[in-house]
Amino acid sequence: MKQHAIFDLVRDELIAVENELASVIRSQVDLVTDIGSHLLRAGGKRLRPALYFLCAKSGRPALATILPVAVAIELIHMATLVHDDVIDDATTRRGLPTANVRWGNHVAVLSGDYLFAKAFSLVAGDAGSPTLKLLTETICAVCEGEIIQIRDIFNPEQSEANYLERIAKKTAGFIATSCELGANCAGLAAGEIRALHQYGYAVGMAFQITDDILDVTASSEQIGKPAGNDLRQGVLTMPVIYALHHSKRSAELKQLILTRDMTDAALKQIMAIIHETDAVEYSYRRVSEYLEEARDSLPSSITGGIRESLLEVADFVGLRKY
Amino acid sequence: MKQHAIFDLVRDELIAVENELASVIRSQVDLVTDIGSHLLRAGGKRLRPALYFLCAKSGRPALATILPVAVAIELIHMATLVHDDVIDDATTRRGLPTANVRWGNHVAVLSGDYLFAKAFSLVAGDAGSPTLKLLTETICAVCEGEIIQIRDIFNPEQSEANYLERIAKKTAGFIATSCELGANCAGLAAGEIRALHQYGYAVGMAFQITDDILDVTASSEQIGKPAGNDLRQGVLTMPVIYALHHSKRSAELKQLILTRDMTDAALKQIMAIIHETDAVEYSYRRVSEYLEEARDSLPSSITGGIRESLLEVADFVGLRKY
Repeated sequence: MKQHAIFDLVRDELIAVENELASVIRSQVDLVTDIGSHLLRAGGKRLRPALYFLCAKSGRPALATILPVAVAIELIHMATLVHDDVIDDATTRRGLPTANVRWGNHVAVLSGDYLFAKAFSLVAGDAGSPTLKLLTETICAVCEGEIIQIRDIFNPEQSEANYLERIAKKTAGFIATSCELGANCAGLAAGEIRALHQYGYAVGMAFQITDDILDVTASSEQIGKPAGNDLRQGVLTMPVIYALHHSKRSAELKQLILTRDMTDAALKQIMAIIHETDAVEYSYRRVSEYLEEARDSLPSSITGGIRESLLEVADFVGLRKY
Repeated sequence: MKQHAIFDLVRDELIAVENELASVIRSQVDLVTDIGSHLLRAGGKRLRPALYFLCAKSGRPALATILPVAVAIELIHMATLVHDDVIDDATTRRGLPTANVRWGNHVAVLSGDYLFAKAFSLVAGDAGSPTLKLLTETICAVCEGEIIQIRDIFNPEQSEANYLERIAKKTAGFIATSCELGANCAGLAAGEIRALHQYGYAVGMAFQITDDILDVTASSEQIGKPAGNDLRQGVLTMPVIYALHHSKRSAELKQLILTRDMTDAALKQIMAIIHETDAVEYSYRRVSEYLEEARDSLPSSITGGIRESLLEVADFVGLRKY
């Protein structure tokens, strides 16, 4: 479609969309920005925003008021294309390699989710809904966390700080947001809302670390999914990263961890090396610290049964064996 | 986590969440409902809504006002789990087979998208944002359309009506919504907004049918992706369905279409059988009808350059060769 001729009437608006797209796909996580830029380079007819603008122009709305929805429409379209390409096993789109070919299906699925969430976040900001804004930004962060996790698989050089950043985004942020949204409903003061956010964040960190400990300690029956699953996928979690830095057999562990299509024997050996160190104890100590932080975060205005329940949640996250 | 003890204080609220979840995952498309029900059966700790309610309860908000966000939070969590299971190639979750195992990765990706969109749709309704409500419901329909497409692959018994329903959901609805949202910004009357929605819908139908015609006529270079791609994936489109119903070699065509891992020779033979019939001409005729409908839908109040551009879009969709 020769959109330059047909869409002359909305050329300025479409240029504004391109600029906005380039700006909103920018993420703190370079890989996420790279994927977005790649998708933008592949371009497209921008048929949907063009029709939107043409229909809008029969009135005289200001560009600034109608731009976010146009950008959201194109972001949603891009997200569906990314997922379509995964589904169709497509290798090229508009002459460029697809995201699934360049970064793999998993990153492509998450990038699509990220673009969806970004789109809704734009409209939410525009619609003046703080709840939706917070929720959508949280999902963007969840996607970023998951993308970081995939970026860092089979990378024995990652630090505990990398790990903590990743689980903060993928798990703790969402639980913090759940608490914050509840606190908002209760009409609490800003400081109390922040405190409950912090409580949720700390509970979330403890929750995820516990989950990751269970992957190297629990049986498959206990957790309802195969144990050692993360290790097989190359996802290195707190106890593993700790062992890599503290085990005398670190070099051997590194070798084993890099194994693709890991055998049960290799998995057992990895577990053995981890359990020779105090990696599990260390990780449980970190869990306790986060839960301590969670308890300390509870504002004094939260009393009675609610306070008790929130304290109990913190207790149980630490005790969880499945 | 023994949530019954810890979450006693919000037990009624959590029961309300379960009921709402069961209600919102219901779709016109049975397969979509089945997947949602399966995910619900797997249950979960409902940690996020429980924390949300506990934090909310320090005020005394009415359940009805805080329920939608709680349901949205759990829907989003469910969506991320579905996508996580695809990414991890997980086979079980909470002791039940995962969605990717039961229905395949592709359906699982789309189901996750559907749950995301449903979640935002709930919050959008709650936040009183009609724009976001329309946009999110449109994406739910896009996901449903894509899921129908996967459900119906390699099914030579599907009718043209099935095909039209599917492309209405997956393509035309989104273009109709783009026009409707633009018309809303312009402050047009309800009848004019409906008319522009109809215009977008008809353009969208024509656009998708043209796309599907190109899959059996264009070269890979022209369309920037491999021709015959739909056929290889078992996706039967208008010209193929037409040929199945009108070709003298229908039985042979049916055989060929059911081939998995289709060779180039088989693909060529399918194309030959299709082109022996008037399937392509017929499909282009249907495109013309939709474009006629699009032109006729334009309200008389849309004049001048805007009217011209919208008419030109209709012309170009019909002429598009790539």
